Amino acid sequence: MPASHTFTLRVRYGETDQMGTFYNARALDWFECGRTELLRALGLPYAEIEERGLYLPVIEAHVEYLGRARYDDLLRVTTSVEFAGRARLRCPVEIAHAATSAPVVRGWTVHAFADRQGRVARPPLWLLTLLEKPFV
Amino acid sequence: MPASHTFTLRVRYGETDQMGTFYNARALDWFECGRTELLRALGLPYAEIEERGLYLPVIEAHVEYLGRARYDDLLRVTTSVEFAGRARLRCPVEIAHAATSAPVVRGWTVHAFADRQGRVARPPLWLLTLLEKPFV
Amino acid sequence: MPASHTFTLRVRYGETDQMGTFYNARALDWFECGRTELLRALGLPYAEIEERGLYLPVIEAHVEYLGRARYDDLLRVTTSVEFAGRARLRCPVEIAHAATSAPVVRGWTVHAFADRQGRVARPPLWLLTLLEKPFV
Amino acid sequence: MPASHTFTLRVRYGETDQMGTFYNARALDWFECGRTELLRALGLPYAEIEERGLYLPVIEAHVEYLGRARYDDLLRVTTSVEFAGRARLRCPVEIAHAATSAPVVRGWTVHAFADRQGRVARPPLWLLTLLEKPFV
Repeated sequence: MPASHTFTLRVRYGETDQMGTFYNARALDWFECGRTELLRALGLPYAEIEERGLYLPVIEAHVEYLGRARYDDLLRVTTSVEFAGRARLRCPVEIAHAATSAPVVRGWTVHAFADRQGRVARPPLWLLTLLEKPFV
Repeated sequence: MPASHTFTLRVRYGETDQMGTFYNARALDWFECGRTELLRALGLPYAEIEERGLYLPVIEAHVEYLGRARYDDLLRVTTSVEFAGRARLRCPVEIAHAATSAPVVRGWTVHAFADRQGRVARPPLWLLTLLEKPFV
Repeated sequence: MPASHTFTLRVRYGETDQMGTFYNARALDWFECGRTELLRALGLPYAEIEERGLYLPVIEAHVEYLGRARYDDLLRVTTSVEFAGRARLRCPVEIAHAATSAPVVRGWTVHAFADRQGRVARPPLWLLTLLEKPFV
Repeated sequence: MPASHTFTLRVRYGETDQMGTFYNARALDWFECGRTELLRALGLPYAEIEERGLYLPVIEAHVEYLGRARYDDLLRVTTSVEFAGRARLRCPVEIAHAATSAPVVRGWTVHAFADRQGRVARPPLWLLTLLEKPFV
């Protein structure tokens, strides 16, 4: 079971801006795609997590912009997940050009555990089991 | 009470693309802003409509791109609303440069009436009353 | 050489809205992804078309919303391209659930030929040759 | 001349996600709106800065999510700008509900000085003069 997961995506035309590179906010959209694919690879798609009544809202995000990426460039997104205390998850992400490995974006998000109403929830055992396995 | 409503918005940096003008899909976001402000002007903010359990999902959209608009350009969005049969609303929109009236986008959306689960709903009397008033 | 092209994409979390389905403007982003993949399949990535100084700005778009699609649903996007007169391209698109073929969105975009400055351009021979081949 | 600038914006429908609050990446779009309005208030719209050949690309961004905001909520965005060394600008931002002052988002972006080609540029005197005035 992977401690981290890598997949590729292409920069969409609508993700560029007039500077000719991707617009800065799109990095957070890509971080989300990375978490989605990581959780799927871990055997627990995030859609199923929400169906079980658990939400992982982003409570902090950090992004460093390291290089340009243009429309249709193929990017490699590598995402991992780790506990940050008992009540937080932290997901580091690295995005680089697939062809050259030249870095594009690096950063992380921090997630709380919440129920459907947005109230703090305890991470359930099934999630702890899943997330701790790769790191043992 | 207005049959149509006009407000202004500025093109955001993230709404531009590498062609240097606004990205085509953003027009539909602006149409939404126009409907939001129109319904507020009619005395019934859309947020309240949804709180009453009524949804107006877009079932058709049409956009004609008539001119360029760049980052930070001030645009004038004029939106109106009319019945298209008993079970549909139609919202024509015109977007032009505020300074010159040069046209930017023209189009319309068609909306169904639905309940929270997305099932077809009858337009309630309070909405009929509200929407028919301006056109009498 | 294909007259039409099909690829799949997943609904991103950020593409949903509070109605729980994808936000209507996102359909136009997906149409763009479809055109990008179609042109790549035709052997002429759109990035290269722009490098040659030719732009294909959207001058009209039409979208019909036929069904819901939720976060992480896998969608099948089928795009084709045809001439609409000598100076326009028309790209019909159909989007359906990959698993069930249930329709989600249907529509089309119309494109002009323009140069870097946004002025009308004649479609160059290399593009005519490329686009007419599949339809002979 | 203001050291910081406050303006209001409304959460757009397309900025919500299926959790019912704004999607996390949208905070960076709002940060951009804040910088745009701050620079306008300082007498130098960012569009003019780019016309002079100077670009201020985001090289780092940090966001803390402090509270929920729903569709059509009116938010107050307060942005300031300061030097971070000689070659960097730092723009702290605070976003709160206009009605209650309940915090929604807090964060900052860091900007480099670049020319049209994305190469590092020295901050020109006219910008130094402008930005240092409010903090004297």
